[in-house]
Amino acid sequence: MKKVGILGGGQLGRMLLQAAANYPVETFVMENDSNCPAAHLCQHFIMGDITSFDDVYNFGKVLDVLTIEIENVNVEALQKLEAEGVTIYPKPAILKIIKSKILQKQFYKDKEIPSGDFIITNSIDELKDHLHFLPAVHKISQGGYDGKGVCIMHKPEDIINGFDAPAVLEKKMEIYKELSVIIAVNSKGETAIYNTVDMVVDQHLNLLSYQISPAVIPEKLLWKAEAVALMVVKAFNSPGIFAVELFADKEGNIWVNETAPRVHNSGHHSIEACYSSQFDMLWRIMLDYPLGNTDHILSAAIVNIVGEQGHTGSAHYEGLNEVLAMDNVFVHIYGKSQTKPGRKMGHVTILSNEPQELLHKANQIKNILFVKTV
Amino acid sequence: MKKVGILGGGQLGRMLLQAAANYPVETFVMENDSNCPAAHLCQHFIMGDITSFDDVYNFGKVLDVLTIEIENVNVEALQKLEAEGVTIYPKPAILKIIKSKILQKQFYKDKEIPSGDFIITNSIDELKDHLHFLPAVHKISQGGYDGKGVCIMHKPEDIINGFDAPAVLEKKMEIYKELSVIIAVNSKGETAIYNTVDMVVDQHLNLLSYQISPAVIPEKLLWKAEAVALMVVKAFNSPGIFAVELFADKEGNIWVNETAPRVHNSGHHSIEACYSSQFDMLWRIMLDYPLGNTDHILSAAIVNIVGEQGHTGSAHYEGLNEVLAMDNVFVHIYGKSQTKPGRKMGHVTILSNEPQELLHKANQIKNILFVKTV
Repeated sequence: MKKVGILGGGQLGRMLLQAAANYPVETFVMENDSNCPAAHLCQHFIMGDITSFDDVYNFGKVLDVLTIEIENVNVEALQKLEAEGVTIYPKPAILKIIKSKILQKQFYKDKEIPSGDFIITNSIDELKDHLHFLPAVHKISQGGYDGKGVCIMHKPEDIINGFDAPAVLEKKMEIYKELSVIIAVNSKGETAIYNTVDMVVDQHLNLLSYQISPAVIPEKLLWKAEAVALMVVKAFNSPGIFAVELFADKEGNIWVNETAPRVHNSGHHSIEACYSSQFDMLWRIMLDYPLGNTDHILSAAIVNIVGEQGHTGSAHYEGLNEVLAMDNVFVHIYGKSQTKPGRKMGHVTILSNEPQELLHKANQIKNILFVKTV
Repeated sequence: MKKVGILGGGQLGRMLLQAAANYPVETFVMENDSNCPAAHLCQHFIMGDITSFDDVYNFGKVLDVLTIEIENVNVEALQKLEAEGVTIYPKPAILKIIKSKILQKQFYKDKEIPSGDFIITNSIDELKDHLHFLPAVHKISQGGYDGKGVCIMHKPEDIINGFDAPAVLEKKMEIYKELSVIIAVNSKGETAIYNTVDMVVDQHLNLLSYQISPAVIPEKLLWKAEAVALMVVKAFNSPGIFAVELFADKEGNIWVNETAPRVHNSGHHSIEACYSSQFDMLWRIMLDYPLGNTDHILSAAIVNIVGEQGHTGSAHYEGLNEVLAMDNVFVHIYGKSQTKPGRKMGHVTILSNEPQELLHKANQIKNILFVKTV
């Protein structure tokens, strides 16, 4: 059996390991918390710091294959492991580009992939030279995650909230839709594309409201979204799973926002909605099996379950019984004992080919289910 | 979080634990092999003998809830644990009846549940008094499993192959169909019934060939099958998951063959085919959540992957790549390192609403996929 390691032990690792149990594979996880969501679902849990060269190198040197569930890992150790024969998904060179918002934006520019205009900044002071560029979004180059490390700047006064560190200032565009296209790439370079996901954002709160897949948008836009996402993945030229997040503007143009070189929140519906989920697919890639079938069985919506504002401590899932009483609804609680505001604690998938039912149930769930403290 | 234990660490435990990762629960497994299929998927694995009073009692006394994945466990320890407040699915009293083929047949008779005629025997010698009862099936009362402990007797000479131990001699009937109905029962006594499964047997080899669900049989027979299965479960009067195996004869009568008070091979398709799988359902019952939706999303077939004759040793899955290249096919390998003839090593589920496609792919898989030694 192949020995496969995952750097990071969060919910993505957890769902990867649920899928791993369908295949003959020996699994390893490294994380600095032995109570993390994935710790108990692997054969071998190793305590360690995924950003430390020594920890990552020592973890990886006994493995055949290594993957990540978060970008913020020690890439230098991965490069050394790759040189020594460990197969890594995605390639460390690609991870290095993606980890840095600056390198990532530069990459799209170099490859002539449509992505919004941007300016590189290294300090708040430098931002003062680019006031003409507002409204814009300031994104820290390294370590941003789940909305952290992002600052929207409408007017000159906003720049004091920016980052006094290497960052990109991206021209704010009028967004018609936020989309995500997940693409699987195997070692032969063959690809399998999942249906485009419509990430419906609450414009008022600037928070993801729910996701619908396949996205119900004009066909031409779907084609463009797939074409641009495929262009990104071909340019990266690495096997693995890639979630390409896109903006569609009101003129029907598609722009790359950013790419995650791993399984992604926007693909969680694929567990129930697709013949081969994104998690199943990554195992197929890592174990050298044929790519799976990305077709939808039914259309799906996802609602994320996030920690309620004002609640930090032991998690209690208010309304869980009501949600579990709903038909064609699938609950995934990630097993994090502690909640805090905005923390991703789980998700709910709704299956139906009736768009109205998807929306109705998504809204119902958002009004029923809350993560609070006990 | 509730502490829930599973006695037995085979594939049923493995699939239960895959489903458990969707819920907030702390999981425990006891088995006498630390490399068993379920060992690495729980929070707490305890080495122990599930037939030993002390081992089962010590395992269970720290738990809130206990369930089984095999009947052959120490029931006396479960009865003591139940008396001390541990909730056990199914009730130990029911398990005691079901564990014994003699008590089980007697139970159906007492409750006027249709089940074939039978005679209790205690030795091969006693069989000689019942030659008029042949053709018949001799089943050992305790510990039979997966076709072991069953002997078909056509003529008087066959009785020497019978069991020199407590057993039942069941009148052989002309079987039109072997069916299975899985029913979930929660603590309030509410039930949820899965669609009837057609267990298609290779009459030549007397081996399960494949399973189709929902069974494509006359509607009247489906109603009868559900009614009889529900009668069985109501008579047992215990929460849990029950697989009621039935015979349909050529006259359209339904007879109970036997009942498994646990998740069952005939329900594995429910992982992909149903909104709530049998594994998901048992967690809902054990965690006091509402019962799930047993509806089919699509029709399904299952092919079991069993160890090839003449191969004992490290398992190799010949043809796995070809099967994984098929669309709408789901592979489950149970992670047993050693194969032996007839050992259940995995299963494959096929989803389609085209009955011809189900049959065609089931046959294809049976002709492609073999478990051999390396």
